[in-house]
Amino acid sequence: MDSGEKNRSGETGQGGATPRGEVDWYGLSKRLHRQYGGKLETIPKIPIRRLKDFAIWYTPGVAEPSRVISRDPDQSFELTSRWNTIAVVSDGTRVLGLGNVGPEAAYPVMEGKAVIFKYLGGVDAVPLVHRARDIVDFLRLLKTIEPSFGGINLEDIESPKCFALLDEAQRQLEIPVWHDDQQGTAAATLAGMINAFKLVGKDMRESRIVLFGAGAANIALYRLLRAWGVRPENIAVLDSRGVLHPDRSDVDRLMISNPWKYRIAVETRGAGLRPGDGLERALEGADALIAASRPGPGVVKKEWVARMARDAIVFAEANPVPEIWPWEAREAGARIVATGRSDLPNQVNNSLIFPAVFRGVLDVRSRKVTDEMTIAAAVEVARYAEERGLREDYIIPSMEEWDLYPRVAAAVAVKAVEQGVARRTTTYEEELERARRIISLAREKHGLLWERGLVPPPEEDYE
Amino acid sequence: MDSGEKNRSGETGQGGATPRGEVDWYGLSKRLHRQYGGKLETIPKIPIRRLKDFAIWYTPGVAEPSRVISRDPDQSFELTSRWNTIAVVSDGTRVLGLGNVGPEAAYPVMEGKAVIFKYLGGVDAVPLVHRARDIVDFLRLLKTIEPSFGGINLEDIESPKCFALLDEAQRQLEIPVWHDDQQGTAAATLAGMINAFKLVGKDMRESRIVLFGAGAANIALYRLLRAWGVRPENIAVLDSRGVLHPDRSDVDRLMISNPWKYRIAVETRGAGLRPGDGLERALEGADALIAASRPGPGVVKKEWVARMARDAIVFAEANPVPEIWPWEAREAGARIVATGRSDLPNQVNNSLIFPAVFRGVLDVRSRKVTDEMTIAAAVEVARYAEERGLREDYIIPSMEEWDLYPRVAAAVAVKAVEQGVARRTTTYEEELERARRIISLAREKHGLLWERGLVPPPEEDYE
Repeated sequence: MDSGEKNRSGETGQGGATPRGEVDWYGLSKRLHRQYGGKLETIPKIPIRRLKDFAIWYTPGVAEPSRVISRDPDQSFELTSRWNTIAVVSDGTRVLGLGNVGPEAAYPVMEGKAVIFKYLGGVDAVPLVHRARDIVDFLRLLKTIEPSFGGINLEDIESPKCFALLDEAQRQLEIPVWHDDQQGTAAATLAGMINAFKLVGKDMRESRIVLFGAGAANIALYRLLRAWGVRPENIAVLDSRGVLHPDRSDVDRLMISNPWKYRIAVETRGAGLRPGDGLERALEGADALIAASRPGPGVVKKEWVARMARDAIVFAEANPVPEIWPWEAREAGARIVATGRSDLPNQVNNSLIFPAVFRGVLDVRSRKVTDEMTIAAAVEVARYAEERGLREDYIIPSMEEWDLYPRVAAAVAVKAVEQGVARRTTTYEEELERARRIISLAREKHGLLWERGLVPPPEEDYE
Repeated sequence: MDSGEKNRSGETGQGGATPRGEVDWYGLSKRLHRQYGGKLETIPKIPIRRLKDFAIWYTPGVAEPSRVISRDPDQSFELTSRWNTIAVVSDGTRVLGLGNVGPEAAYPVMEGKAVIFKYLGGVDAVPLVHRARDIVDFLRLLKTIEPSFGGINLEDIESPKCFALLDEAQRQLEIPVWHDDQQGTAAATLAGMINAFKLVGKDMRESRIVLFGAGAANIALYRLLRAWGVRPENIAVLDSRGVLHPDRSDVDRLMISNPWKYRIAVETRGAGLRPGDGLERALEGADALIAASRPGPGVVKKEWVARMARDAIVFAEANPVPEIWPWEAREAGARIVATGRSDLPNQVNNSLIFPAVFRGVLDVRSRKVTDEMTIAAAVEVARYAEERGLREDYIIPSMEEWDLYPRVAAAVAVKAVEQGVARRTTTYEEELERARRIISLAREKHGLLWERGLVPPPEEDYE
């Protein structure tokens, strides 16, 4: 079940199906990637009016910034682009729905992510795909390249390796390390859950919650829910063998192979279920289902949803097809339904989270990104939607709501300062203004190059 | 003597001296680096007109380029930015004249280099400073990150580590690996030497040449001269203990600690000098001196130059002050003098070489950069100056001669194809046109952002 928890699509339109309508996104994407030869480039952000300017930006002048940094390495956050530069790192062991396809094949995805980082967060992100498969080598790589970056975004790494890697990297590095498939998806989900529970008038802390799928996203979500105050015995977590339970026959093996699942089994004690119980049994009387498992439809059955509690909340996050279609879930009595798809209401979308989280941590030169900061991001996303008026089909903002990002950045930055992990101080208002300025400038620059034809038009267009 | 062979300045204007006139480049550089927060950023090179475009550049469409690459990893040179992206890599063990100041302090220099790569060569270069000091770890890093890049530019690495590192990296990687302090400086020097010998009417192959300083640049130059056809017994190479000679007392130690010097001692047999002979003795009757040693003046004495052969050639490449001032060398009878300084005639400048070499190798997706390709670059640079009319104060072009770069790129690309190391074929004319287009576009984009105020003016200006 780990293989499908990702909130993105990696499926071809097999059998002629093109999930989003008439456009053949796959073929078009391949042809346009070829036309442009990739998606991202570098550009100087300083004036170069004549060659003499290189006396400032290169020799002899550059020796002085180097000398200042040699005395105080943290000055590299002030005198170089490190403060705004992150690496988008993948070993290519779990790329979209394609599986372990290797680092080269991960590059287009990392580069796409880097484009989003810049466009939505004003963050300079560099794709870094690599051959360090072993966890020790992977960690060594991160530690080795740390001086080049203000943060690390991990991506598309197989589970359970990704858990140990994130834990250790966060411990060893003095820059924020984020695994978007864990924290990003979990934070977007939490944001949606906060508003869904508000709308149905239930207290999440007292509700029965079922997490279906025990991959990166749901294991991280479990941790956030615990920090949010949900009691472990109210959270049932299921993998492909049923509920995680201390009496399950494979529990000793899990202790070694996946201590994260083991810990959940022990803490939740199966949330009142018996070992061997599956989703059908788990959903009886449950208030919320968060499915991050494998593409549907039919993975979650209508009749199971029908036996959930009144005003049930169903998040079916698999892509390209959710575990259950929203209309089916609603017919079965669910009151609020969210999916991972942009063409359906309530898209649980980690693009609402990661560009802003990094904007915030980078702007205060944070050493860490903590669960508290992740929750602060989720809360701000939830609050943003609430201010616009919650409805059953609007519990979470959409990517078009640009003014969301600076707010989330500000919430994260302030939390970093409050937790004592930031190298710089700031206020919410100051960071809001700074984040707005940085993100607008990024978009303005790209817009100007496009308008003036320096980004050429696509050879083949689409609606 | 290894400590000063670099053709760049890392000295402060100690004692109030500001080597290039009135401007305090060091202080100004520090303040402007702080204003701009570094020098380089990323920017999307594809159209983003609406969020729907992300269906092409990210999910679901991006799965298709990934799938194509998973079947044929070399397609990553066509469907991602890898084809035009290199890493500028340093461990910070030998930064400018500052020495072993660590990776963070190397960042401003690598970033400056990356700016030049883009501005003169249209190459997307990413600064990568790191903590792998040990040669095994350094190599492992390069091998690990290879899938992200189309080439590697090594920089500011202590000697003799840099020699073994380059040799091994070139052997193990399937992308071009270049150490600019070796090949770049050597190629620029060779270009100048070709024209200098032409102008004085001597055959370089039959001349007596003295290389003073046995660091990265001169050891690489020795290899290029050998490939050019100069006989080893005509090349005297000197380090701080005098001429490299098979009978020198430390020669057994050298075999272990610096096999590159050892090999030169054995091949040249000291070029007719005796062990213990120094520069004074070596210059008697010599046709050319290539000094890449330590800042002068007075490192090379006038009276020594006076005892060189008729029409002597003197390259004094130390920075910020050459080993001997040009006017002193000329007064002593040297006919042609070159230095590393931009404010004196005949600047031996590796910026003439590296942006174009990478433009060429990247455009044909070359697997290697060979000595033959390096020599082809030097020959094209020399030919360019020759076409404009050689004079004693014009043996090498200057950085302002923009049309040089596409020509050098074309010469390198064609040589890569000829040697069978390129993944793509091309002709000189085709590559000339392509390189022109790519380099102009890079400059046009930056120019537009500057004109329109999206690159803000410096808070403090200078003449």
